[in-house]
Amino acid sequence: MNTLGIAVIGTGKMGADHVRRIGATVGGARVVAVADPDAERVKAVAAGVEGAAAFTDPAAATAAPGVDAVLIASPGPAHEEAILLALERELPVLCEKPLTPDPEGALRVLEAERRLGRRLVQVGFMRRFDAEYERLKELLDAGGIGRPLFLHCRHRNAASPSFFTSDMLIGDSVVHEVDAARWLLGQEVTAVTVLSPRPSSAAPEGLSDPRLVLLETSGGAIVDVEIFVNCGFGYQVRCEAVGESGSARIGDGHAMVVEAGGRWGGEIAQDFTTRFADAYDRQVRRWVAAAARGRVDGPDAWDGYAAAAVAEAGLAAARSGVRTEVRMVERPGLYR
Amino acid sequence: MNTLGIAVIGTGKMGADHVRRIGATVGGARVVAVADPDAERVKAVAAGVEGAAAFTDPAAATAAPGVDAVLIASPGPAHEEAILLALERELPVLCEKPLTPDPEGALRVLEAERRLGRRLVQVGFMRRFDAEYERLKELLDAGGIGRPLFLHCRHRNAASPSFFTSDMLIGDSVVHEVDAARWLLGQEVTAVTVLSPRPSSAAPEGLSDPRLVLLETSGGAIVDVEIFVNCGFGYQVRCEAVGESGSARIGDGHAMVVEAGGRWGGEIAQDFTTRFADAYDRQVRRWVAAAARGRVDGPDAWDGYAAAAVAEAGLAAARSGVRTEVRMVERPGLYR
Amino acid sequence: MNTLGIAVIGTGKMGADHVRRIGATVGGARVVAVADPDAERVKAVAAGVEGAAAFTDPAAATAAPGVDAVLIASPGPAHEEAILLALERELPVLCEKPLTPDPEGALRVLEAERRLGRRLVQVGFMRRFDAEYERLKELLDAGGIGRPLFLHCRHRNAASPSFFTSDMLIGDSVVHEVDAARWLLGQEVTAVTVLSPRPSSAAPEGLSDPRLVLLETSGGAIVDVEIFVNCGFGYQVRCEAVGESGSARIGDGHAMVVEAGGRWGGEIAQDFTTRFADAYDRQVRRWVAAAARGRVDGPDAWDGYAAAAVAEAGLAAARSGVRTEVRMVERPGLYR
Amino acid sequence: MNTLGIAVIGTGKMGADHVRRIGATVGGARVVAVADPDAERVKAVAAGVEGAAAFTDPAAATAAPGVDAVLIASPGPAHEEAILLALERELPVLCEKPLTPDPEGALRVLEAERRLGRRLVQVGFMRRFDAEYERLKELLDAGGIGRPLFLHCRHRNAASPSFFTSDMLIGDSVVHEVDAARWLLGQEVTAVTVLSPRPSSAAPEGLSDPRLVLLETSGGAIVDVEIFVNCGFGYQVRCEAVGESGSARIGDGHAMVVEAGGRWGGEIAQDFTTRFADAYDRQVRRWVAAAARGRVDGPDAWDGYAAAAVAEAGLAAARSGVRTEVRMVERPGLYR
Repeated sequence: MNTLGIAVIGTGKMGADHVRRIGATVGGARVVAVADPDAERVKAVAAGVEGAAAFTDPAAATAAPGVDAVLIASPGPAHEEAILLALERELPVLCEKPLTPDPEGALRVLEAERRLGRRLVQVGFMRRFDAEYERLKELLDAGGIGRPLFLHCRHRNAASPSFFTSDMLIGDSVVHEVDAARWLLGQEVTAVTVLSPRPSSAAPEGLSDPRLVLLETSGGAIVDVEIFVNCGFGYQVRCEAVGESGSARIGDGHAMVVEAGGRWGGEIAQDFTTRFADAYDRQVRRWVAAAARGRVDGPDAWDGYAAAAVAEAGLAAARSGVRTEVRMVERPGLYR
Repeated sequence: MNTLGIAVIGTGKMGADHVRRIGATVGGARVVAVADPDAERVKAVAAGVEGAAAFTDPAAATAAPGVDAVLIASPGPAHEEAILLALERELPVLCEKPLTPDPEGALRVLEAERRLGRRLVQVGFMRRFDAEYERLKELLDAGGIGRPLFLHCRHRNAASPSFFTSDMLIGDSVVHEVDAARWLLGQEVTAVTVLSPRPSSAAPEGLSDPRLVLLETSGGAIVDVEIFVNCGFGYQVRCEAVGESGSARIGDGHAMVVEAGGRWGGEIAQDFTTRFADAYDRQVRRWVAAAARGRVDGPDAWDGYAAAAVAEAGLAAARSGVRTEVRMVERPGLYR
Repeated sequence: MNTLGIAVIGTGKMGADHVRRIGATVGGARVVAVADPDAERVKAVAAGVEGAAAFTDPAAATAAPGVDAVLIASPGPAHEEAILLALERELPVLCEKPLTPDPEGALRVLEAERRLGRRLVQVGFMRRFDAEYERLKELLDAGGIGRPLFLHCRHRNAASPSFFTSDMLIGDSVVHEVDAARWLLGQEVTAVTVLSPRPSSAAPEGLSDPRLVLLETSGGAIVDVEIFVNCGFGYQVRCEAVGESGSARIGDGHAMVVEAGGRWGGEIAQDFTTRFADAYDRQVRRWVAAAARGRVDGPDAWDGYAAAAVAEAGLAAARSGVRTEVRMVERPGLYR
Repeated sequence: MNTLGIAVIGTGKMGADHVRRIGATVGGARVVAVADPDAERVKAVAAGVEGAAAFTDPAAATAAPGVDAVLIASPGPAHEEAILLALERELPVLCEKPLTPDPEGALRVLEAERRLGRRLVQVGFMRRFDAEYERLKELLDAGGIGRPLFLHCRHRNAASPSFFTSDMLIGDSVVHEVDAARWLLGQEVTAVTVLSPRPSSAAPEGLSDPRLVLLETSGGAIVDVEIFVNCGFGYQVRCEAVGESGSARIGDGHAMVVEAGGRWGGEIAQDFTTRFADAYDRQVRRWVAAAARGRVDGPDAWDGYAAAAVAEAGLAAARSGVRTEVRMVERPGLYR
């Protein structure tokens, strides 16, 4: 497999984070072009990536040599144009949500794909890749709690940015639950009702925050979403699915909790590769970064020696049944 | 930063997993050589990595062109030789635990580093890179629960492999707690006591399983480790640190829980980049793999359209205060 | 304080349980009269209580000698008459919910109290006496999470009795949340909306189960109640209050969990009288019942001896620093 | 069943609490005599109980008219004499722990019971009556986690009283775990080892606090107890039982959590009488206390009316499918 050359369109917070991500945690890909109307910002981002060219024009970035795919992280109104540019070249696209700000723009994207006769566009609803959501989806698909009747969702932000509007509570925030509900249930949303309590005094003047958004689905389920973008105490995303024979919830800070058959609880990992998968990844990533500078970033040879010395004493203690002292050489200066 | 060329020594379960990891989740590195005495196995592993050469001799792999660093995942008795080969070439080393099976071998590694005048060897005690352990370490270092008095540790495996011995409970399993305790406390272990209850009838004949291993440290703390390698119900690693002013535990399947000042609880994430960091990484990795084959592996343009259509109805519902139906075009065949 | 003589009206499941309760766990009171139209049932219940007279007519029971107060546990339609009988005699009343099946009957009770010029009737909304609800109420009253914006309630039964109707989901079940919401918020309910998903296939034919009931309150809060009387997996009552500065939930099987100020968690008991209050009560109750028959129902003198012997060995072990064997006499036959 | 007349010996904190308990939460019993060498204190306690006589001499209290049983809550060294006085009269005894301060005194109590040929003495190890301990015991007895291998116990107090000694950590505190372990396992303790870390700086000078006490049992199990009487953050009692096929823990502030068969979790209550048992008890107790003064202490008739009015609106909303306003009369002054 050759390395995939990616053009990143938009180098704001999300775009710059994607550039960093592709460099640090994604094998088999590299950023070859970045585009942003802000010439200084795009140059700064490109400077941090070996072999990446900077552009102010998305069309030029998309057409740059070595571009195999396009990641779009520009503002929503710029998405449609960037997507269509990529589709002209039949390049795969990962586009941050929303696909487009309105259904009409999205229909034009659908039409462009129809002409090509293939799907090339992926939308950045990243919850579908969250480990907890994945497990909830598996449970629902396996019929683990029967036909779903309710999704109870909570979506809370500590504070909203200054430019946030009452419309954005739905269009920018609840839209994540809309996608999650459609995906989890495999159903379309057919109707929406919105209840607005007296706004929190912590919300900026004029912002109708929080709200309770009620979705009805094509399969007869009901989805209620508390959206509260100035809750003050942190960021929380929760979902409880209630089915005909049980309930399952995610987002409480632990793994999925299922209630069924008179019991509540969750699964226990069955081996260390599951439990410590992330630790193994992080270990090697950090070692690679340190090794490139000829360094160690973790337990060193002294730590290996100390563990061996304690283990030796432990074996003696187990055999003798009595307390056994550990014998170690003095720690050399190199390891202090 | 140029890509780091890595030689992986040993292509058993751990070694093969590291080769996969470097390809999939580690940016800035690639495997350029693999070594294993099993010629067929090493060829099969090398065949899966573009540009990786296969060797049966670790020395040849270490000396291969493009090798900048060495990752050792061979059996413990082979570690010392492989490390010394790498140190002769002043190459950074990541060596799976144990560094060596006995303290004497480890001392020879220390001596080799002393001659070089620098540390190049890192040991694969990967718990130091686990997010929960990292937070516990930060809490202890910040004095969040005062001077540590106890570490209560649980280390359980569903079942032990057939070759497991009573010695390995300590030398292979508890050694992880030995390193974690030394690291968390910043202290050396000074004495060991081992208590062995009547063995579980689920343990193989002759295996002294479970055991309670008690470590005393240079700072006057006590570490008790339940090691139980045939507990039957899963893999669990837990640690509760008890300090002069509070307690903190990890490994219950949720984030760190702290008890102090009359309250128990944990931290709430403050933004989505923390909560969904892994989801973003996974999204882009899976998209890169799919895009290389010209495919989509996630929400597609239809999902983007549906979200926009529901959001539009939601905005209307919020404005009108009444239930509003969602209007959507029929789903084109391409998206079914 | 003299012992309060109570007439219990209705000896079905709830009434019989109240008779048992007054005998076992309530000091300062005794049942002196019971009434039920079912002559056999009421005789059987009265036979279990020393000094209790049986009646088939509530008026006769209310007028019986020694009656100081009346506890009404007859079916709802019989409540109004029984209450008015008690009020004629100015007797305090504890009436199981509902007070009356309709608002009109309740208004007649209000009118009777108005004529007396005092309140004598208490309604059996027992959630107000649940330790978790009490703590949530205290937190809200103290402003611990700011002005309440939402109450998210779940009310689930494993299965509904055969006579249950769609109306009873609201009139018999959600009515508990109506009272809890009014009490917790100190506000009246001003409007109701009911959403009904496609009924669960586990619900009897024709029963609209589950439902989502939405209450709006005089203070601008919104209360959503999932009522699901055939959830299959058990009985659950949960409530999450979301305020302007935090969130608190009860009913997850542990004590109240509060989310505020970047942290989630709960309180730790400060002494053993709190943690073991119920154990102390239960200990003495069971001992009293056993002692009345000249028996022991708990740890006996041998247990006291064994504890003293182990403690003695423990003190020696602490002083010597080494393992110390416990010395005990052989267990006498009386204690086997 | 006649009311059991109880003499309470000792009216310090524990004794006075038992007097209160018998009056408030224990049916079928009343305090008829109290004894304490402190004449003023005993008079004050007796004054609060109708019909209770005060004595400074335990023998006189035990011999007082109407005494059917004796509850001993005097200091430990006074227990033996008080027990023997009761046994002379063949009266049932509930004696606060410890039975006696040393094994020799306990043996004399055993001898007195042997002469009577029956057991009359119960010791106040109240954990056996705690709901969580009871469930753990049931689980162990039913073989739910196989033969027990370990009990991991934590026993923490916020701060120790000024008179506390290092010996009392074992004789007064760990003695609870000694009894709990013997009862849970049905085994005797055969050996003790005590490990003492460097004392917490929060402990008074000279107090060896905390400690790790290791008990070995006749069935080959190991019990480790962290005793920490100056932990600062609260009172905690925890116990995790590890068996051959699973683990169960209590004391985390929720119900028992079991780990077995690849899953962790607990039971869900199956009906409201379980979930709200305590609330029902408390409701009636508080109503009895209020009714004796002609008062209401809970939801009143207005609350009953309001619930009926909301339910009526809810039924209309369910039938119509639309938002329905609640209609209520104005709240009369009597109910404000």
